[in-house]
Amino acid sequence: MRRPTHGGNLAWAAALAGCSPSLILDFSASINPLGPPKSALAAIEQALADLTAYPDPDYAQLRASLSQFHPTLTPDWILPGNGSAELLTWAARELSELEGTCLLTPAFSDYQRALEAFGAKVRKYPIDLSGEVLERPLPIPNLKPEIQNRSGLLLNNPHNPSGQLFNREAILPLISQFALVVVDEAFMDFLPPNQQPSLISVVQDYPNLVILRSLTKFYSLPGLRVGYCIAHPDRLRRWQEWRDPWPVNILAAAAATAVVADTQFQQQTWDWLPKARSQLFQGLALLPGLQPYPSAANFLLVQSEQPSSQLLLKLLKHSRILIRDCLSFPELGDRFFRVAVRTEAENQRLLEGLEAIL
Amino acid sequence: MRRPTHGGNLAWAAALAGCSPSLILDFSASINPLGPPKSALAAIEQALADLTAYPDPDYAQLRASLSQFHPTLTPDWILPGNGSAELLTWAARELSELEGTCLLTPAFSDYQRALEAFGAKVRKYPIDLSGEVLERPLPIPNLKPEIQNRSGLLLNNPHNPSGQLFNREAILPLISQFALVVVDEAFMDFLPPNQQPSLISVVQDYPNLVILRSLTKFYSLPGLRVGYCIAHPDRLRRWQEWRDPWPVNILAAAAATAVVADTQFQQQTWDWLPKARSQLFQGLALLPGLQPYPSAANFLLVQSEQPSSQLLLKLLKHSRILIRDCLSFPELGDRFFRVAVRTEAENQRLLEGLEAIL
Repeated sequence: MRRPTHGGNLAWAAALAGCSPSLILDFSASINPLGPPKSALAAIEQALADLTAYPDPDYAQLRASLSQFHPTLTPDWILPGNGSAELLTWAARELSELEGTCLLTPAFSDYQRALEAFGAKVRKYPIDLSGEVLERPLPIPNLKPEIQNRSGLLLNNPHNPSGQLFNREAILPLISQFALVVVDEAFMDFLPPNQQPSLISVVQDYPNLVILRSLTKFYSLPGLRVGYCIAHPDRLRRWQEWRDPWPVNILAAAAATAVVADTQFQQQTWDWLPKARSQLFQGLALLPGLQPYPSAANFLLVQSEQPSSQLLLKLLKHSRILIRDCLSFPELGDRFFRVAVRTEAENQRLLEGLEAIL
Repeated sequence: MRRPTHGGNLAWAAALAGCSPSLILDFSASINPLGPPKSALAAIEQALADLTAYPDPDYAQLRASLSQFHPTLTPDWILPGNGSAELLTWAARELSELEGTCLLTPAFSDYQRALEAFGAKVRKYPIDLSGEVLERPLPIPNLKPEIQNRSGLLLNNPHNPSGQLFNREAILPLISQFALVVVDEAFMDFLPPNQQPSLISVVQDYPNLVILRSLTKFYSLPGLRVGYCIAHPDRLRRWQEWRDPWPVNILAAAAATAVVADTQFQQQTWDWLPKARSQLFQGLALLPGLQPYPSAANFLLVQSEQPSSQLLLKLLKHSRILIRDCLSFPELGDRFFRVAVRTEAENQRLLEGLEAIL
């Protein structure tokens, strides 16, 4: 079995731990532990009767729900996809037509996959993770203006794997300087709406801005594959011609339509996360040789004196707990790991598991 | 609402008929009326518990099941996709790198979409549909050999919309003459295994052969989106790097794993189709101004003295029955429509509905 380059590969972990995948406590994938919402499962059950019909290629109902969820947007500014990873593929195709793409690193490994798929020329710019401040200015490249305005920029906010936030004001001026700016806001939902530095409110001013959003992390549905892109309708229509007509299946579309209206689940998550994250942060900081980084998202990046791939294996064998080493973020080297924030009881199991092997 | 270019758009039909989509009897999408198999629904129900995990990016279990279904193939020769339409997109990307692609027409309109998406140069070769013989030689272009061996060939077998079969022996010599041959076998399952002129048995001899298969038509799961490609492992690994890591969601993968092992449902379908198709054929041939074409698949192409788009509207309004005009097959013009073969009782309703308006 090949080594996973992404979190959440339980089949791989279970083989190493010598147990069934269901016995692994997974801190490697940054998934909301409160979900999936009951509203999602009910919507799927109800949609089972519709499997004999093709999905509506316009996804009119889902787009209408997403437009209610983002009231400043009409449905034609929103394109559902088979997870935001599918939409990233098409964003990368457009980036590859430019002179180059500036990528802030460390970065989610699938960015590299998507950019390479279409032969994009990637310029990496490392982020300084040493600061303590959460809302930070972007470490943006000093490119000659004539190169910059023929280049693209790809970043995510909150940043993965650090969980840090970029100021909206730090990104805004860059949108006019680059030919195309793609902002992956996969973890943005974990901030309450009034704290989100999302670019959605300004997207209609920038035809060269693409925003990617995921529904699988916040709503604990990574197995279902559903996300969406927010961008100028002309761009979205072009992508629709590139890809097949029905990338989101009927069950995923039904669940997505339901969850964005599930304000109760959303509020529960916003109530749970700050306290659970803060307790986990403090617990990790007290363990010898570990230094967690402040995070605005539902995961924590942790610097470790021991090589993290060794920690991962020890923890898996000793406690059947899976953490995420950061080998797929090569800039970080072997002294970092990432953990999801889970329920307080599960976070406690992680802390005890780590204590036993450190 | 835009006019559908594909069958099965019930929202559009219901708006025209002034009723709910569930009241439309759909002959426009060529879906097996006996399904979905209970095994699919049971597998989906069971997989609901796994939605909080990412799909296995290798789809090892599904590939193992498909390899049992096609015993001459090892799993690395099989790549599951989000419907065969997703895999067609990547096949078209490879075709577009060649000097040109020969397309047998009339052809499924999504071929054109996929080929245009990557700027492929398409050369169309019309098929003579006037013959009576089912197993027919391919009307293959007289290209100069030096052009042909830098070109691709895309066809489907059974042919859509005619339902006619190409001889395996007619395709075989072409595989060595073209740089890449893509054969869409989306409707092949409707023939009993011993009658299928599928190329699967020879695929391992031809690294330049790509076979597409669908699971949504035979198993009545078009809402679920799942199909697979059979081709050389190197090619499939390349496609995996192009697309996102999880194109098939967990529910679709579970259902697919179950249905390919459901020999009872398969046998039921092979028992139902020949008789139902033959009765429908005879009924249509008796109606004034209609001439059905012999078909090996689960649909019939019908030539009509009246414009088919008028017939479609009349039938929809009069009987809430949706047929497929063939406007998305421009070579056919407005005197052809296509109908699925459904249960004997439903086929009878179609015949009565047509009789009332002809």
